[in-house]
Amino acid sequence: MNYGAEVEVTIARVRAEVSRLHAELTRYELVIWTGGNISARVPGADLFIIKPSGVSYDDLAPENMILCDFDGVVIEATPGSNRSPSSDTAAHAYVYRHMPEVGGVVHTHSTYATAWAARGEAIPCVITAMADEFGGEIPVGPFAIIGDDSIGVAIVETLTGHRSRAVLMQNHGVFTIGADAKDAVKAAVMAEDVARTVHISRQLGTPLPIAPEAIDALFDRYQNVYGQSALPTSRR
Amino acid sequence: MNYGAEVEVTIARVRAEVSRLHAELTRYELVIWTGGNISARVPGADLFIIKPSGVSYDDLAPENMILCDFDGVVIEATPGSNRSPSSDTAAHAYVYRHMPEVGGVVHTHSTYATAWAARGEAIPCVITAMADEFGGEIPVGPFAIIGDDSIGVAIVETLTGHRSRAVLMQNHGVFTIGADAKDAVKAAVMAEDVARTVHISRQLGTPLPIAPEAIDALFDRYQNVYGQSALPTSRR
Amino acid sequence: MNYGAEVEVTIARVRAEVSRLHAELTRYELVIWTGGNISARVPGADLFIIKPSGVSYDDLAPENMILCDFDGVVIEATPGSNRSPSSDTAAHAYVYRHMPEVGGVVHTHSTYATAWAARGEAIPCVITAMADEFGGEIPVGPFAIIGDDSIGVAIVETLTGHRSRAVLMQNHGVFTIGADAKDAVKAAVMAEDVARTVHISRQLGTPLPIAPEAIDALFDRYQNVYGQSALPTSRR
Amino acid sequence: MNYGAEVEVTIARVRAEVSRLHAELTRYELVIWTGGNISARVPGADLFIIKPSGVSYDDLAPENMILCDFDGVVIEATPGSNRSPSSDTAAHAYVYRHMPEVGGVVHTHSTYATAWAARGEAIPCVITAMADEFGGEIPVGPFAIIGDDSIGVAIVETLTGHRSRAVLMQNHGVFTIGADAKDAVKAAVMAEDVARTVHISRQLGTPLPIAPEAIDALFDRYQNVYGQSALPTSRR
Repeated sequence: MNYGAEVEVTIARVRAEVSRLHAELTRYELVIWTGGNISARVPGADLFIIKPSGVSYDDLAPENMILCDFDGVVIEATPGSNRSPSSDTAAHAYVYRHMPEVGGVVHTHSTYATAWAARGEAIPCVITAMADEFGGEIPVGPFAIIGDDSIGVAIVETLTGHRSRAVLMQNHGVFTIGADAKDAVKAAVMAEDVARTVHISRQLGTPLPIAPEAIDALFDRYQNVYGQSALPTSRR
Repeated sequence: MNYGAEVEVTIARVRAEVSRLHAELTRYELVIWTGGNISARVPGADLFIIKPSGVSYDDLAPENMILCDFDGVVIEATPGSNRSPSSDTAAHAYVYRHMPEVGGVVHTHSTYATAWAARGEAIPCVITAMADEFGGEIPVGPFAIIGDDSIGVAIVETLTGHRSRAVLMQNHGVFTIGADAKDAVKAAVMAEDVARTVHISRQLGTPLPIAPEAIDALFDRYQNVYGQSALPTSRR
Repeated sequence: MNYGAEVEVTIARVRAEVSRLHAELTRYELVIWTGGNISARVPGADLFIIKPSGVSYDDLAPENMILCDFDGVVIEATPGSNRSPSSDTAAHAYVYRHMPEVGGVVHTHSTYATAWAARGEAIPCVITAMADEFGGEIPVGPFAIIGDDSIGVAIVETLTGHRSRAVLMQNHGVFTIGADAKDAVKAAVMAEDVARTVHISRQLGTPLPIAPEAIDALFDRYQNVYGQSALPTSRR
Repeated sequence: MNYGAEVEVTIARVRAEVSRLHAELTRYELVIWTGGNISARVPGADLFIIKPSGVSYDDLAPENMILCDFDGVVIEATPGSNRSPSSDTAAHAYVYRHMPEVGGVVHTHSTYATAWAARGEAIPCVITAMADEFGGEIPVGPFAIIGDDSIGVAIVETLTGHRSRAVLMQNHGVFTIGADAKDAVKAAVMAEDVARTVHISRQLGTPLPIAPEAIDALFDRYQNVYGQSALPTSRR
């Protein structure tokens, strides 16, 4: 299939970006083995690029990223290969279909975020970096079976109207969204960092709450003065 | 001893694979100093390749891997060297003798898995990645003295008829099996990851259980739809 | 603006040092993504060099460090770029204005220090390395809004007359000061190390106190016999 | 001073070994900044080589290691430099004077070992790797002031007649001894590993004890069958 020269150039750029961003997941030890995945919307088309299933992080390259449509159907894999896309492709596709402002989606089983998720417990906003980045708690979505639309539905329902770009899926792991893939990766890195810091703080007592108006002020300043995200404020 | 050209080629390939896979143990920080070991069955012969005893991970190479028979007797070490095989060789040999479907065995003292083992406590299945990979809890085997068949017997007794490819040996560490050595290494990596995540989740409360039928569905999907292991379903 | 040849040479040297020292923050995993920042006073001028805002640690270089005056106003950024300085610039500037003996300031959200900060709890001095380096507990400053003088005021009020070169800002993170930037970086590295060790010790019981006179003796020996800091003893 | 050609060759070899072994302390994250130190006896002379004080691990090299006599007096530092030896030199010297079977000494403030030390609590022997390596618990020495013979005396008193090659100095850190420097480094690596594993195991319950006769059997097997140490059995 050919989408015209302009879209083809965009696809090539997004392939390279999605491939390259996976190195941030290993750098911050958010993933092991072949787990975790990043996708990015192809601007100007109802398409996205996602990691292949079961390929080592050492072997990821622009040319083995998979091009899918918004039903999660593979449009283009590496010529001559039979790589299938990430087993979470249906969830990514559902998010792109229902959240037009989202340009990137990330999924990991990062340790501390998953530990909160296993208890079905939201992460309370008790550090300023969390107020900056997430504008409040990181919420929990329901237990959902892997492989159909259930996870996508849960992500969209939980994050719509919520400031947080991260959602803990109960007993499972964390999904993050962003204006683009890099923004979603940043949210995944920050989500694990705050999950860890708040966990450790709670081990020896109760973290002090931050007043809601201070959370609002921190979030507003960070998103509007220092933020560089293209997600509209109402979304974030 | 000469096993014929075909087996000799296979032996050379397995030497290289076993040597190379040890880098995954250090990458994921499952081992320190000279601890831990990987072995692999030589397909088509009653032989396996195992790590030498007391050699630094920096110095492992295909040519210093040790070839043993299924009694754990050294058949071939590096010419001119007097390297002895891993002190866990008897346990590996026992597994190959009694579990013909197993092609690889891994042993580590990885931190979190060993912490559960020191309490003699199985790791409960409260995260979906664990249901995918192990199909339920990771069981505990008995306290067993090192150096004779005791550990091998315990591994075979605990894992026979169990979905888990990992067993915690009480007060000791973890052994994993797989269709091949890479599959066993993956099980060792995943076992430590779930041991850590479930430990951390339990530090601040009680993880929510996953319903047994959901565990079954996750395991079945992962093994049959996405799994690439050659271990028959009844085994895994 | 031109400060004369001698100051220009000094500025170039400080740019290089501040850029280079940021690698210690990633080496010791005190920062993630673009978080954290280091600044250094330009000896002989009312100026300091600070990290730019929102630039990846991979891309930091002497030429993109920002030159500011003591009101936090940018004097010189990379020609042709519109980089703004760290969002914590006002806090750094306030410290340089009010603490003439301070030559370097560091800010991080390092995990364990921030965990203590989230509870608003000072770190007790129960290990000799902490007595050596900080001469007693690491104190906590108040909750302060980011972006104006509040944090600078809190740092100066908390650390004036205190032996510690580190202060935990409630619900936020840690700021450290030093005779020069390297000394402040060392304090940031040591603060996280003692925050972690004391946290872990407290998880399983109560660390034994060190007698105040032993703390004094350790601090005195370390600062006077082995210390190489230019901060006057009364300050440290 | 000249010790004759043979001793000079030995000194050069030991300088290189001590320098090189420090990389194991950073590899296993037992030290930060310039902390920690390794020394080695010069066989055939009442001399030892030790790390200089306050030098970055990046800059350690055979030529900046310091040669001392058994009173801790510097015999030879780098020509033209005024480097002083580690501030723990007196403790190392005392050990060499009083324990002729010891060929290497290591000191670190590794996190988990120091956490036990801060509570003044011995690490119980509840994992087989600890029985292998230490033959029982890792004991605690008293609180001792840094800089004179106090620490050396405490090390010798605590470890004489004890199987363990590691001692936790209360509120301070860990010292290890060995037949040579590499053996002492191994003990430092293993001590932190068991300190961490036993700590984590205890966080969620009580580790199961290992029967004393099983500890004896494990220790005996490891030291005599697999051990390659030159320390006489009575010592280890």
